[in-house]
Amino acid sequence: MRIGILGSGLMGGKLGTLFARAGHDVVFSYARSEQKLKKLARDAKGKARAGTPRQAAQEADAILLAVHWSRVDDVLQQAGDVSGKVMVSCSLPMNADDSDLVIAHTSSGAEALAKKLPKARVVSAFGTVPSEVLFDVFEARRRATKPSLVYCGDDASSKQVAAQLIRDVGFDPVDAGPLRIARYTEPFTLLIAQLAYEGDQGPELAYRFEWR
Amino acid sequence: MRIGILGSGLMGGKLGTLFARAGHDVVFSYARSEQKLKKLARDAKGKARAGTPRQAAQEADAILLAVHWSRVDDVLQQAGDVSGKVMVSCSLPMNADDSDLVIAHTSSGAEALAKKLPKARVVSAFGTVPSEVLFDVFEARRRATKPSLVYCGDDASSKQVAAQLIRDVGFDPVDAGPLRIARYTEPFTLLIAQLAYEGDQGPELAYRFEWR
Repeated sequence: MRIGILGSGLMGGKLGTLFARAGHDVVFSYARSEQKLKKLARDAKGKARAGTPRQAAQEADAILLAVHWSRVDDVLQQAGDVSGKVMVSCSLPMNADDSDLVIAHTSSGAEALAKKLPKARVVSAFGTVPSEVLFDVFEARRRATKPSLVYCGDDASSKQVAAQLIRDVGFDPVDAGPLRIARYTEPFTLLIAQLAYEGDQGPELAYRFEWR
Repeated sequence: MRIGILGSGLMGGKLGTLFARAGHDVVFSYARSEQKLKKLARDAKGKARAGTPRQAAQEADAILLAVHWSRVDDVLQQAGDVSGKVMVSCSLPMNADDSDLVIAHTSSGAEALAKKLPKARVVSAFGTVPSEVLFDVFEARRRATKPSLVYCGDDASSKQVAAQLIRDVGFDPVDAGPLRIARYTEPFTLLIAQLAYEGDQGPELAYRFEWR
């Protein structure tokens, strides 16, 4: 798959790297510097290159949106038309100092994004685990018992793409239903962040749903 | 410990039964009928009896609040003064038809409860798993790997009581921090409910946080 990364920070950089290692063709875009994008592409050790948001988006089979919420409009404007594209978002709708959700309860960041991009096929995924755990989970991807990763969306075929990407990086995809369930998965992410960054067991935290 | 159950429905009935089986002295109160309370007490096969909310609350070392949100004021009025009591709540702030939270994002049911009862020591716990999984987890409580159960609160000693009760019924207690974290754990409960009741794998669902 050709995957365009919009926002090559902690999440986008690591997920793009793992997508490349899993065999996908990755374009990193929208980091602090061109050098950082080139280093990501070089270190990914796969089919990866640096590009502009437009290059990342236009050729992509799937786009990963991984920017801070305050940058969503800017990166989307640079990306250009994304009609019909699978848009996997892990961007939480956080305020400038990352202390609170700016959209919650009666809507969600994922739903707000889908309203901005009515012709894109938005899936919410990857936001619910800290970036610190991603490489470890990927390394352990051959184990029988994998951590879960929830995703939700309103378009069945784009959810299949997201589920495949979730599998590719070593998690067990858990379909949480329609996009409005992001109203629950986004606060869940803040619970995970609390346990990962405010607890004493460190940020390398994953979760697993277990049906008995 | 003497534990008073306020609300002996699905959650309160099952948790009270397990507390009794774990060796605690349980008073069941506030069910649809006196018969149901008596049957719960009889079937618990431990030190359990039926009582009024007042009887359940006044002698208790810990109170479990497990009523529908619409019944909180009524049951608390019947329970009487709960100053200084450990009040473990699994009551989610749901509307009448259980379709949405009536308190969320800028507060939580647990925080609203603590405001109603400024002299009680409120802990939010047990709300995040479906009642359907409780007996199975209890039966498997000798296994090395247990499912997690998050709890949060502002009073350290009452959190220790809650953590012990969580252990007693077979879960691994995970301290999620202060009571305001219920703003995240309560929507998380709705994610769990979605996976348990709207998915195709059934309601016997637990979760486990895994630090790598």
